[in-house]
Amino acid sequence: MGENRDSMLQSIDTMLHPGSIAIVGASAKLQYGGRFLNNLLQTNYKGKIYPINPRYEELMGVRCYPSISSLPEAPDLVAIIIPFENVLSVLDECGQKGAKIGVIITGGFAELGSEDRKAAQKALSDFAQRSGMRLTGPNCLGIANVKDGIWPCSALLTDIKAASIGDLALVSQSGATAFGPALAKALDRGLGFSYIISTGNEADLDTTDFMSYCIHRPEVKSIVAYFESIRDVAKFRSVAEEALRLGKPIVALKIGRSLAGQKAALSHTASMTGSDEGYDALFKQVGVIRVEDWDELLEIGSFLVKTPPFTKEAVGIVAHSGGVASILADKCDQVMAVPQPSNKTRQGLENILKGFGSSANPADITWHAFEEEFTDILNFMLGDDAFGGVVLGTAGADSQAQRIINAAAKSPKPLAMLWTKSEREVDGLKLLQSSQVPVFFRVENLAKALKASLFYHKARAKLGQRVSSEIIARPLPKVDVRGKAGPLGLLEGFELLSSYGINTLQAKLAHNPKEAKAIADSIGYPVVLKVDSPTLRHQTDLGLVKVGLKSKAELEKAFREIKAKLKSLDSAKDVRGILVRKMAKDGLEVIIGVKRDPQLGHLLLFGLGGIFTEVLKDFSLRVCPVTFTDIQEMVREIKGFKLLEGFRGHPPADVDALEQALFSTSQLATSLGDKLAEVDINPLIVSDKGQGVVAVDNLIVLNG
Amino acid sequence: MGENRDSMLQSIDTMLHPGSIAIVGASAKLQYGGRFLNNLLQTNYKGKIYPINPRYEELMGVRCYPSISSLPEAPDLVAIIIPFENVLSVLDECGQKGAKIGVIITGGFAELGSEDRKAAQKALSDFAQRSGMRLTGPNCLGIANVKDGIWPCSALLTDIKAASIGDLALVSQSGATAFGPALAKALDRGLGFSYIISTGNEADLDTTDFMSYCIHRPEVKSIVAYFESIRDVAKFRSVAEEALRLGKPIVALKIGRSLAGQKAALSHTASMTGSDEGYDALFKQVGVIRVEDWDELLEIGSFLVKTPPFTKEAVGIVAHSGGVASILADKCDQVMAVPQPSNKTRQGLENILKGFGSSANPADITWHAFEEEFTDILNFMLGDDAFGGVVLGTAGADSQAQRIINAAAKSPKPLAMLWTKSEREVDGLKLLQSSQVPVFFRVENLAKALKASLFYHKARAKLGQRVSSEIIARPLPKVDVRGKAGPLGLLEGFELLSSYGINTLQAKLAHNPKEAKAIADSIGYPVVLKVDSPTLRHQTDLGLVKVGLKSKAELEKAFREIKAKLKSLDSAKDVRGILVRKMAKDGLEVIIGVKRDPQLGHLLLFGLGGIFTEVLKDFSLRVCPVTFTDIQEMVREIKGFKLLEGFRGHPPADVDALEQALFSTSQLATSLGDKLAEVDINPLIVSDKGQGVVAVDNLIVLNG
Repeated sequence: MGENRDSMLQSIDTMLHPGSIAIVGASAKLQYGGRFLNNLLQTNYKGKIYPINPRYEELMGVRCYPSISSLPEAPDLVAIIIPFENVLSVLDECGQKGAKIGVIITGGFAELGSEDRKAAQKALSDFAQRSGMRLTGPNCLGIANVKDGIWPCSALLTDIKAASIGDLALVSQSGATAFGPALAKALDRGLGFSYIISTGNEADLDTTDFMSYCIHRPEVKSIVAYFESIRDVAKFRSVAEEALRLGKPIVALKIGRSLAGQKAALSHTASMTGSDEGYDALFKQVGVIRVEDWDELLEIGSFLVKTPPFTKEAVGIVAHSGGVASILADKCDQVMAVPQPSNKTRQGLENILKGFGSSANPADITWHAFEEEFTDILNFMLGDDAFGGVVLGTAGADSQAQRIINAAAKSPKPLAMLWTKSEREVDGLKLLQSSQVPVFFRVENLAKALKASLFYHKARAKLGQRVSSEIIARPLPKVDVRGKAGPLGLLEGFELLSSYGINTLQAKLAHNPKEAKAIADSIGYPVVLKVDSPTLRHQTDLGLVKVGLKSKAELEKAFREIKAKLKSLDSAKDVRGILVRKMAKDGLEVIIGVKRDPQLGHLLLFGLGGIFTEVLKDFSLRVCPVTFTDIQEMVREIKGFKLLEGFRGHPPADVDALEQALFSTSQLATSLGDKLAEVDINPLIVSDKGQGVVAVDNLIVLNG
Repeated sequence: MGENRDSMLQSIDTMLHPGSIAIVGASAKLQYGGRFLNNLLQTNYKGKIYPINPRYEELMGVRCYPSISSLPEAPDLVAIIIPFENVLSVLDECGQKGAKIGVIITGGFAELGSEDRKAAQKALSDFAQRSGMRLTGPNCLGIANVKDGIWPCSALLTDIKAASIGDLALVSQSGATAFGPALAKALDRGLGFSYIISTGNEADLDTTDFMSYCIHRPEVKSIVAYFESIRDVAKFRSVAEEALRLGKPIVALKIGRSLAGQKAALSHTASMTGSDEGYDALFKQVGVIRVEDWDELLEIGSFLVKTPPFTKEAVGIVAHSGGVASILADKCDQVMAVPQPSNKTRQGLENILKGFGSSANPADITWHAFEEEFTDILNFMLGDDAFGGVVLGTAGADSQAQRIINAAAKSPKPLAMLWTKSEREVDGLKLLQSSQVPVFFRVENLAKALKASLFYHKARAKLGQRVSSEIIARPLPKVDVRGKAGPLGLLEGFELLSSYGINTLQAKLAHNPKEAKAIADSIGYPVVLKVDSPTLRHQTDLGLVKVGLKSKAELEKAFREIKAKLKSLDSAKDVRGILVRKMAKDGLEVIIGVKRDPQLGHLLLFGLGGIFTEVLKDFSLRVCPVTFTDIQEMVREIKGFKLLEGFRGHPPADVDALEQALFSTSQLATSLGDKLAEVDINPLIVSDKGQGVVAVDNLIVLNG
């Protein structure tokens, strides 16, 4: 595993620093093949270039070869830009020649959705496995080592020439997005890249592999990623956690929120987009910042690189106008406190403002934003213990910019800037953009960056906590589920939950009134009767559930009614008996659920149950395995948590026991693995603090 | 009223087309006073200019006068840019001279928050009333008639010179915002203005007055407004409704969402920001589009001007790349359907794409976006009945832009564009920006514009509906509330509700067990006892509510217990008797509430009551008076509406009766006017369809 990973990282290193590049499908026309060759020639690539095309002797002044086999050496990197039906045979040739890396620009594989094209792509994956050659693509645009000026890609040369070197690494499933809008937006914002990598359909190397490479490179400070799906969630988690440890923020534009988006994903890079809410949960767990568009992707990535963490969750705001100050305060207040400054700051500002503007927070410092005294104002604000960081809204000349840059450099706190003039301004803006002060053009994006910073640094503080799969404190007496498939019976389900330490109601199966009475005697009245059948649904509606039975007589009558009813039902197959169980105590009803997502694995769900989850959608999710902190956060994340804390004079509920039950459920999911399809503990009753919880009903579904 | 309005509109017309302008406080330095003069000289103003400053003989080559009185004529417009303590005396002089309009740049009035400065501002308001001179400001930056090149303002000349003429009118309480970021953003987006108006503290004319002028001007197609508060809600409603009728969209950036924002508003233009959720409701009712920042303000304003309504709520998406197509689909799908195209469109696209890209929706048309066949693709998409409009994600040269512009011109459907290259591009972009095709740089903003369009045209379709205050079908037998103040008694409250047609439970007051028994006999057992005292709170906790009393004996016992309890309570003053009422039927509990907001007047609230409104915040609001459609929308707006529709086999509730009760409550609020402070009908029980509703409890608070 470790060796494979090292070899994979070595391959990516070769891909980004190739000693020689062959281009199968190079041509004279400036389409994909011609552009690839032209890009290498027009930029800084110093290695050997081998255009491959039997129809030319030379191309753009470079000797052309008829085939890979005819090359004088094994090229490090082979770009493939030929009709899809020829790709595999050329790859075979590459493998025989000893080439190390393939960049498959050619499209027409699994993204078309048909079975034959999926098979064609599978053949590429198999080839990579077999040959040891590592591939990016098919259906990508190539890669770029921006820092060294090496552009093995089919992007437009004008786009390439506009790109700057910087400390962001861009990893994107969509090549046209990476070398299109993402590059254009970076240009507009004065941001630059160290690497740009497009992965297309990911027949071999995927976004996570490239992230894994980038986080270890000193020239990369943050990964900004655009993708539609994650192919290996465990691998992603481990890379994301490593990135968190290394302090390299990952910012992700993950599309596929909507069904329409999912359809698009299917027809684009052949990825089945997973449950979008599950991705939200996953990112939350591993400190990945999810954003909504290209601007945010770049601006937030850069913000996290440029600024230290807020020293407290409170921001001071300074602007040259009350209107700008107000809108900044409005947006920042949705993210953190906007407290009043200390008396010292206030007095300091008053001495400068002399009755004009406002020395409060937000501070309206009028024209003083453009004068020398701005430095004093910045120092007062940054030095004020009331604030964990400072935000500016203004736009001036280089002189103003320099004052801001100097103040930021001297302070251990973040200082961010909303630029209020034209985005095309040069004076002031260029200087700021080349500095460590992050510049925003939209209040909204600035506020989102503040929020991302709080989130990211909190996630870092949680590092090193153990996940549920590592914490199985005692060897659990597990119920044997081997050979079982489909829904479990009620009693079976209770036994399985119980074996993971989840408290369930005392219950036994009866097959006749006599057995029922004996069970009721042993567990004590009142009792509930319910049919134990994995396949019989909507029992309450069918009259198959009898609650609050207080005596032998009531019990016997109810038992006979259920029996009679069952006889009349066609659907009453697989009846294992009639469950006699204790009445549940009063308490707050919640639901704990587990669902197996085809991409993300087990999702753990928590909510208040009933209409709260189904109608009001007030639930929280995490991807298994979870840490105990994840559990604590998910319990507090729902709006209805106030009910658990004790609402309107009700005593607080036993949140500790609830958290333990959630954790135990996640352990159950992790240890059953693929075998487990679904769990519903609905309801779990949470009693008052210290009184525990109890699973009152359950539905557990196993895979065959 | 009508005459006042005409004269007000005439004054604003003069303000924007002044024949002569005096500048009190003109100076040689390019600060506020000098800039004002310089701006008039450097732009297109053809009228007479009178700098006023006793220290100069001439300024910037223009003859300077020592005072207003010394002028050869009464100036149409006087700008005042002098220390605040002299403003009023200069205004008096202006009034005597016969000047018509004042533009008060000077700050230091109510925005400082102190009583003396508020009084100084009040003096300006009084002056305007007294003299008939109309004012904008104080604490503003002036105005601009962009279409005629007249800039009576203290903005920077560089900003002015960059401004384009267009069909947006910008009305802003913040001058620095209007002539700062708003102007800069418009420049970046290729958008222009007909008028720019800053109103500052609004001692006389306010944003609504200027809106009222602008909506009648043919050169204005949409109003984009930035404000912190609305001073006269009734006036605003009437102007907003007129704008809706005239098809002139109003887009509003209203700040003050947060407390911090509110503080900023206070110290900025001395406006007390009203309940932010109330503003949301108000805008919803009158078709005003609320936005989050400057970019959205301009882009959405321009989008609504340029595009016709969607012919159906379904959008077709076309992009030159799958990645761009996917993110567009993701965002658009949150706003409207993204359905599959017709077979004809699909076949048409397939014939062009020949197996590459995707002919689905979103369509990935690869390089064909840059070729002649793009016209055919656009025509297929725009002509497809499956789509009510089309969105593009691409960026090409002028040739591509021209194809897009031509296709849009021929189609009755909206066509909008996400520009995927640099915002600084010239080729293609400039041509598009000068056309009727709206161009966006952010997917997010494009999706918000689509949403705004649906909202706006739905609001127009609802025009002309009568509001609750106009529909008092029968002369209502009102309870006389004159002379009353504070909370009403329970029975009084029921009677008042009942007089507005709201069904209440049968109830009477008893003072001894005998009376109680007589009442119970007449209304029928079981009954409820409750103390009728306007001041006694938390009765259930105190044991003062007795429910489900089934017999005389139970009733008598309960009555005596309450009496005994009352004796022991210090707080039991103002006890009017013990209310004997019928037990409520089963049904869904909801809350209807009314709150008087100091700025917005009566807010009508609806929710499911209890934790649904208090903890989960699942409620809807409207500003009174309301239309019946408003009521229908507010009932359906809460997430919990599914419960009213019949959830999980429950029968649907009597929504008609609920709507009627809400409407009646709004009529009660409107007809009691300022007298009414608060109403809580909590709970109102909604029975099954056809079974009506009943108010089970009430709290009505009157102002003194």
